[in-house]
Amino acid sequence: MKLATLRIDGGTVAAAAVEGGFAPLPATDVGELIAQDGWREIVAATLAGRTEGAGPALIDEATADFAPVVPRPAKVVCCGLNYSDHILEMGRELPAHPTLFAKFADTLAGAQDRIDVVGSERVDWEAELAVVVGAELRNASEQEAARAIAGYTVANDVSMRDWQHRTLQWFQGKAFDASTPIGPVLVTADEFGAAPTFRVRGYVNGQLVQEGDTATLVFGPARLLAYVSGFTTLRPGDVVLTGTPGGVGAGMKPPRYLADGDALATEIDGIGRLENIINLNSASVPAAAVHA
Amino acid sequence: MKLATLRIDGGTVAAAAVEGGFAPLPATDVGELIAQDGWREIVAATLAGRTEGAGPALIDEATADFAPVVPRPAKVVCCGLNYSDHILEMGRELPAHPTLFAKFADTLAGAQDRIDVVGSERVDWEAELAVVVGAELRNASEQEAARAIAGYTVANDVSMRDWQHRTLQWFQGKAFDASTPIGPVLVTADEFGAAPTFRVRGYVNGQLVQEGDTATLVFGPARLLAYVSGFTTLRPGDVVLTGTPGGVGAGMKPPRYLADGDALATEIDGIGRLENIINLNSASVPAAAVHA
Repeated sequence: MKLATLRIDGGTVAAAAVEGGFAPLPATDVGELIAQDGWREIVAATLAGRTEGAGPALIDEATADFAPVVPRPAKVVCCGLNYSDHILEMGRELPAHPTLFAKFADTLAGAQDRIDVVGSERVDWEAELAVVVGAELRNASEQEAARAIAGYTVANDVSMRDWQHRTLQWFQGKAFDASTPIGPVLVTADEFGAAPTFRVRGYVNGQLVQEGDTATLVFGPARLLAYVSGFTTLRPGDVVLTGTPGGVGAGMKPPRYLADGDALATEIDGIGRLENIINLNSASVPAAAVHA
Repeated sequence: MKLATLRIDGGTVAAAAVEGGFAPLPATDVGELIAQDGWREIVAATLAGRTEGAGPALIDEATADFAPVVPRPAKVVCCGLNYSDHILEMGRELPAHPTLFAKFADTLAGAQDRIDVVGSERVDWEAELAVVVGAELRNASEQEAARAIAGYTVANDVSMRDWQHRTLQWFQGKAFDASTPIGPVLVTADEFGAAPTFRVRGYVNGQLVQEGDTATLVFGPARLLAYVSGFTTLRPGDVVLTGTPGGVGAGMKPPRYLADGDALATEIDGIGRLENIINLNSASVPAAAVHA
């Protein structure tokens, strides 16, 4: 099943991909949907009702306005330095523990949103697989964590490298409002086999700049969720980003950063594709006092 | 005005300190209260009503059960390395930018809660002044940020140093569930002059281990809020921790960490005092698979 959170009538609605478009579901977003007990049955009943003519009209995929697929997670945990092939090619040792940092719900953006950045001159890309949690996890085993994965989606951990490296803590360069596109859809875990792997690709203006396979993750989705649950409770709708493969702009020689108007695309086979235009001359962010 | 969030009847209620105890207010917690337009008038009207005999009974301060004073902030932003006297005594240069990291709402604990930690052997203290945001801030000037401070409270950024230093990113050692006590009360900004300074003290088993004056902060409250608002929107109820003075256990020779049963106290003159017992043999955290 493919689920999306679509903007409609000044709010949002959760929706399921069906033949011919997206069918609205009885929840304001995918996070709220999967936090409900028996949400699969709710979706099934809604879709069954449609075949009998009940329910609102389908939303056309071509005109759908994608909100962040999970727009209000209480927790967004991100992992850095996680692709073993990239770590090894850089001559580093594989880490014993995942490098983690946090984002806010406000950091997320929709799959086709323009990304407005004010105050950074080193905007970089990080194509990533994101995991959405489907059940409460605390001190979980890897097996428990695997069963608690609601599904998978696509994210780009767009990073303001100047802010990221102002201090030793990356957080401020990773938490710009509406800078991390996520979506367009959540593909539920039952669509894949156990411990699925994915090919992750990033493009800038149509040129492939990143490509990786999550089979090479040091900390795969279930292991990452289990680890995080060792210090904090994960709940339905929480999001974990799994890190990015080689090919970021900061690693190029010379480094390459995103320019105003650049088209950033992020795709994962079997899930979907993000397409975001970078806007460095934002009119949507108040410019009163930029702390650059 | 001193505001608290008190646990009552399986939930919480916002309350104002009055002669003889805490008067319940029409909000479930202080964050919800100050997110309402005209919340000062709401409080004033509630207290005025009491003098005419209306409203529920006072809650006795001696038996009050303090929840985190703001229990559900969307954003908790913390600053490290911020006391200039401590930075200079360590032979370091004053930073040009604040070192920032995030916590979750789940990381917060009540002013007298037992702090249960499973899986760390290096539990350390960090007494801190915390600022609660009272108005929306985005790209704010320092003057705008100063006016947007709802008030001040006491926090202890209890840190699991082993987890904090497993990788270069501190987050995982700073985000253990229910590990950061905050409260007992929010003292509203109008109780102080412009740009007030505070003496912050930390005690372990009654022994003074930390003492600092926020007058020596490199990034004071308003400057910190303005800086954070340069990348993300701050809203009423969001919390910013301002860093800790010298005297943490990891800096002692030899290092000293909190032991099971240790009494941690954190106080700021004119605000209040946190008293938390450290429990390293927790029964309240499921012990299924600890990832130590």
